[in-house]
Amino acid sequence: MDAITKKIIEFRDERDWKQFHNAKDLAISLTLEASELLENFQWKSSEDAINKNMDQIQDELADVLIYALMLAHDLEIDAEKAILQKLKKNAEKYPVDKFKGTSKKYTEGE
Amino acid sequence: MDAITKKIIEFRDERDWKQFHNAKDLAISLTLEASELLENFQWKSSEDAINKNMDQIQDELADVLIYALMLAHDLEIDAEKAILQKLKKNAEKYPVDKFKGTSKKYTEGE
Amino acid sequence: MDAITKKIIEFRDERDWKQFHNAKDLAISLTLEASELLENFQWKSSEDAINKNMDQIQDELADVLIYALMLAHDLEIDAEKAILQKLKKNAEKYPVDKFKGTSKKYTEGE
Amino acid sequence: MDAITKKIIEFRDERDWKQFHNAKDLAISLTLEASELLENFQWKSSEDAINKNMDQIQDELADVLIYALMLAHDLEIDAEKAILQKLKKNAEKYPVDKFKGTSKKYTEGE
Repeated sequence: MDAITKKIIEFRDERDWKQFHNAKDLAISLTLEASELLENFQWKSSEDAINKNMDQIQDELADVLIYALMLAHDLEIDAEKAILQKLKKNAEKYPVDKFKGTSKKYTEGE
Repeated sequence: MDAITKKIIEFRDERDWKQFHNAKDLAISLTLEASELLENFQWKSSEDAINKNMDQIQDELADVLIYALMLAHDLEIDAEKAILQKLKKNAEKYPVDKFKGTSKKYTEGE
Repeated sequence: MDAITKKIIEFRDERDWKQFHNAKDLAISLTLEASELLENFQWKSSEDAINKNMDQIQDELADVLIYALMLAHDLEIDAEKAILQKLKKNAEKYPVDKFKGTSKKYTEGE
Repeated sequence: MDAITKKIIEFRDERDWKQFHNAKDLAISLTLEASELLENFQWKSSEDAINKNMDQIQDELADVLIYALMLAHDLEIDAEKAILQKLKKNAEKYPVDKFKGTSKKYTEGE
């Protein structure tokens, strides 16, 4: 993840765009890109969306990841460590012996 | 990125939750997590948000990455390759010699 | 719509909260409330969501309308006129004789 | 609000588009339109956004209201009553004597 983040930051630095960025607007960008991804599924089943819009889905998902890794970089968050810590928290919240195979999390909300 | 994606999928498989997931609802989840991240910046400057909410920001950003990598996995998208391809497209759209140091992309929209 | 907007602004003025509001953060609030509404449909069909979460759906939809009307008020936009103008634009974009009964808008995007 | 909702539903019925709509996808549409509205504020202060993008802001805000009122209609929610009920709940949550003039709701989250 470090290597790919480096490429993303290189892209920005070559254009000297860091000066226009701040965390709040990057967080806004992230919601906008997530919406553009979701737009590909609007009025469709998952299957139809995948069959019809796979190229755009891939591009929009890449945009989400680019902004997420850029924001992590700017906030000096180690993305990999943050994911592992969150998975650990989730594992405590949803222990295997109580949640295996049940849809409880999905039908009753987190 | 492959290694961390593997950990995310292991977490899901231990709970046998794949059966409840589909791409459309994962895309919805991604927008919801992005919104929860943005919520930390609401009514605040970037600086205030960072000073006040750094732990939640880290956790929500981790959630965004977890759902993005899970969706990539389920759609058999190579996340790293997708990012590199998107950066290449962006490089063609915003060539360095025309966009270096200008805020054009930011003030006039993409 | 004027009467209901007046009630919303009265609620804010009684608490003297206008001082904390600005259009950008109200637009952020609107996306957050729309996400909270959507959360009630996550992992569910429309029917299941309606059967299970109708009270929350109503409350979140009310929040969306409250923020939308508040933002319109602050920007001195006449909400009713804005809707009528937008419907007129949409009518030109999607003339009845070409779009009646076809799913084109829905399957091929706007 | 009834009168304007009627116009919105007439627009849809003239095109016979009800058949393509369901509550879940309308809730998705609402988040997408709210994002398009927010896009006008990205990388900008409120003031700059208003000066630069007022026409688009008005159109996107109209789209948010159109989808919100359409969803209310389809779910047989009386939008006006829902707003008044929510304001009443909010008034109980934020009593004037405790919240007047304080930024508590804004700095410490709801």
